[in-house]
Amino acid sequence: MTQDMTQPVRVLVWNEHRHERKNPKVDELYPDGIHGAVASALREGGCDVRTATLDDDEHGLTEEALAWAQVVVWWGHLAHEEVKDEIVDRVVKRVYDGMGFVPLHSAHMAKPFRRLMGTGCMLKWREANDKERLWIVAPHHPIVTGLHEFVEIEREEMYGEFFDVPAPEELVFVSWFSGGEVFRSGCTWTRGKGKIFYFRPGHETYPTYHLPDVRRVLVNAAKWAAPSGVERFVQGNAKPLESI
Amino acid sequence: MTQDMTQPVRVLVWNEHRHERKNPKVDELYPDGIHGAVASALREGGCDVRTATLDDDEHGLTEEALAWAQVVVWWGHLAHEEVKDEIVDRVVKRVYDGMGFVPLHSAHMAKPFRRLMGTGCMLKWREANDKERLWIVAPHHPIVTGLHEFVEIEREEMYGEFFDVPAPEELVFVSWFSGGEVFRSGCTWTRGKGKIFYFRPGHETYPTYHLPDVRRVLVNAAKWAAPSGVERFVQGNAKPLESI
Amino acid sequence: MTQDMTQPVRVLVWNEHRHERKNPKVDELYPDGIHGAVASALREGGCDVRTATLDDDEHGLTEEALAWAQVVVWWGHLAHEEVKDEIVDRVVKRVYDGMGFVPLHSAHMAKPFRRLMGTGCMLKWREANDKERLWIVAPHHPIVTGLHEFVEIEREEMYGEFFDVPAPEELVFVSWFSGGEVFRSGCTWTRGKGKIFYFRPGHETYPTYHLPDVRRVLVNAAKWAAPSGVERFVQGNAKPLESI
Amino acid sequence: MTQDMTQPVRVLVWNEHRHERKNPKVDELYPDGIHGAVASALREGGCDVRTATLDDDEHGLTEEALAWAQVVVWWGHLAHEEVKDEIVDRVVKRVYDGMGFVPLHSAHMAKPFRRLMGTGCMLKWREANDKERLWIVAPHHPIVTGLHEFVEIEREEMYGEFFDVPAPEELVFVSWFSGGEVFRSGCTWTRGKGKIFYFRPGHETYPTYHLPDVRRVLVNAAKWAAPSGVERFVQGNAKPLESI
Repeated sequence: MTQDMTQPVRVLVWNEHRHERKNPKVDELYPDGIHGAVASALREGGCDVRTATLDDDEHGLTEEALAWAQVVVWWGHLAHEEVKDEIVDRVVKRVYDGMGFVPLHSAHMAKPFRRLMGTGCMLKWREANDKERLWIVAPHHPIVTGLHEFVEIEREEMYGEFFDVPAPEELVFVSWFSGGEVFRSGCTWTRGKGKIFYFRPGHETYPTYHLPDVRRVLVNAAKWAAPSGVERFVQGNAKPLESI
Repeated sequence: MTQDMTQPVRVLVWNEHRHERKNPKVDELYPDGIHGAVASALREGGCDVRTATLDDDEHGLTEEALAWAQVVVWWGHLAHEEVKDEIVDRVVKRVYDGMGFVPLHSAHMAKPFRRLMGTGCMLKWREANDKERLWIVAPHHPIVTGLHEFVEIEREEMYGEFFDVPAPEELVFVSWFSGGEVFRSGCTWTRGKGKIFYFRPGHETYPTYHLPDVRRVLVNAAKWAAPSGVERFVQGNAKPLESI
Repeated sequence: MTQDMTQPVRVLVWNEHRHERKNPKVDELYPDGIHGAVASALREGGCDVRTATLDDDEHGLTEEALAWAQVVVWWGHLAHEEVKDEIVDRVVKRVYDGMGFVPLHSAHMAKPFRRLMGTGCMLKWREANDKERLWIVAPHHPIVTGLHEFVEIEREEMYGEFFDVPAPEELVFVSWFSGGEVFRSGCTWTRGKGKIFYFRPGHETYPTYHLPDVRRVLVNAAKWAAPSGVERFVQGNAKPLESI
Repeated sequence: MTQDMTQPVRVLVWNEHRHERKNPKVDELYPDGIHGAVASALREGGCDVRTATLDDDEHGLTEEALAWAQVVVWWGHLAHEEVKDEIVDRVVKRVYDGMGFVPLHSAHMAKPFRRLMGTGCMLKWREANDKERLWIVAPHHPIVTGLHEFVEIEREEMYGEFFDVPAPEELVFVSWFSGGEVFRSGCTWTRGKGKIFYFRPGHETYPTYHLPDVRRVLVNAAKWAAPSGVERFVQGNAKPLESI
């Protein structure tokens, strides 16, 4: 499933799509759902995009949908526990096989992310209109291409350390919050052949996914997370390659 | 549970203890069980050691036993699936809280290790009396204190790449095998407050845990994995530290 | 200098070009020089390629040549000390600014590499027709796209651990040698905005750079190392962004 | 030179000792010099401590002094360029051989640190009485033993990203500054057998090295940086260990 660089990256944007239907404020900010806003950013960036939500059949994460997807972007919050374990298994297995995975914001507690991390994934949080400034600490990284030294978000939910994840393989962003906290807000890991990028911003009551810099990060992340590497790795019992 | 450096490290050596009772060859090599051999190495190295096995009550991994242990060394192979999930939960939770964890050899497929890694943890293998030479690639590391540039093992089971684990935070040993393979045979990770060291050697049909260099690594690893760091980390809803 | 993905990567292949003119065996293997063989691989892979050698004016590493280059591939061995320090400064500065750098084989002792690493960069070596097998340990990595689990080279110079470099940010290949050694033979680091990939194979008396898998790695590496990231990073005295 | 854990760590505290003699405010804060304050923290923590300054013969960094030292702590600012290159060579060589190195604050531009990093090492800065809060992001680390989730400093010079160093091998602290910046303020690297810990706080016009939490970090860092690992690593031409 290695990426053909001449073709657009195929991205499946998944959203639990609950806040939008319960809270008029969220619906007003995201009339097409959070997935709609994220999808529009990715389409503008040249990706081939589909969307799926929790209440779709098999949460929209059918074998077919996942066979199509080169990258899954994931937003969830209220209903992590409603995601069926067999679907989680399916997503995780696809990541091992090379599918990119981009959990956003409250997806730090999403089942597939927690499974892939092997840690508790909790953090500190506060809904109090903090200002957030995401500083770039990996200036070489493809995910920050086109940005300037930081991304500023006027009002956001605060997430603070300690963020209970394994040490990121690459730390891309560190957030400053006006209330006095910091957070490792852009982190990469690899699992099997799959590349993972966690990106912090995007509380449902703020227009974060309409911000140009945030949208640029989403596009860069999808392209970076697209499959690469060996076709497959070999496991199990093996004959010697040399005489022992 | 931070280590008092003036006291011996308290290590619980866990072994499934099945091969020894089924295979006379293993019993002959390890008359006190694999756990007995590992425990004797650790005692010689100045640790305070207890042992536990699969068939003990609660697999010997009671709340009390784990509260005592600063480090758990784990050997398992045939019976990974017999380890009860609630006991796995207990071990993993203790690792998050700072307990060191040292899975040996076939424990690459042990439930707690797989949970902590978030990957499949498989590899290539062959039982064919390969020679193994573990080269040190982190010469500064406390785990290799007292060793010379490699550890040689005349005959061992082969484990080959790709070893399906997250990129190690520190790569300490890389093995050469006579049949033509290599393996990342000494790897560290951290999860929460806990330190993990996976060490490859120790197939049950070889006298590996009687070798002085291997025993030295076991001692060094236990001391390295002993708890350190902050007393606890804080999570959940948090008041601002500054006026927003 | 961020890469326009729709354009070929511009690669400058640098070679000291001494062995070819002194040793008929090397000249026979590389009638167009080692740089010629490397350049042909990169051209076949779709790169825009120029070459330069030690005896060119300013070693062929003029300000203009380096302003053009998005990636420099470097082969040197006999004449590391003849590379002028002001040219080394120029290359290193360009790496900080985002130019990719791909030192090959004996370039582990090249001045720009040593400067960028901050270590001694020595290793063990032997010219004895060892077999080398480069195992992939980062199956997700763009540099191994299109390969299968290892690259085999029938005869090569041996390089063995300890390779005195900083722990690689990504370890891509580990070599097995028939004489009993291992080596971290494909390693990445970043410095400033620049990406570095050290690739071990390529002793001058073997036809290594004519091997299809090796040529594929060269192409993948050039594309991976091409500039990405923020336009520039800001340093020095800074006014506060918030009222203190 | 591997550490005997039953003996105190031998630490040489080096200070350029210029601000104290030029600026009465600094002299008042540090009547025994910055080195005196750092040394007193280390002595209280059980280390065996000597001090040296720029104006001592050979900057106090004689072969004998460095042979004694297991760890060097380094404070410099005004006079980096006065440190003689042959002394820098000597310090760097000792780090390769296993001596710990703990550069403090403005020593980010000290010659030995820059040499060991291979990067420019610049950053953003501001002297404006910012508040600094150093958040712990590696809760397991020996360097944070005994601390609570952050270290707060009422007034300090600001250092901001991008800090032009290689990605730290372990990121221990991230600082929040009241003016809106963040900084990777506690970072580890290894070079050869040596362990390095950069620790940000300690501008000369603030009483930072009198703060209990800062003093605790200094002690923890010295103990962590003490020599460990193999006696030596072998380099150069090598005979095969197996028949090729």
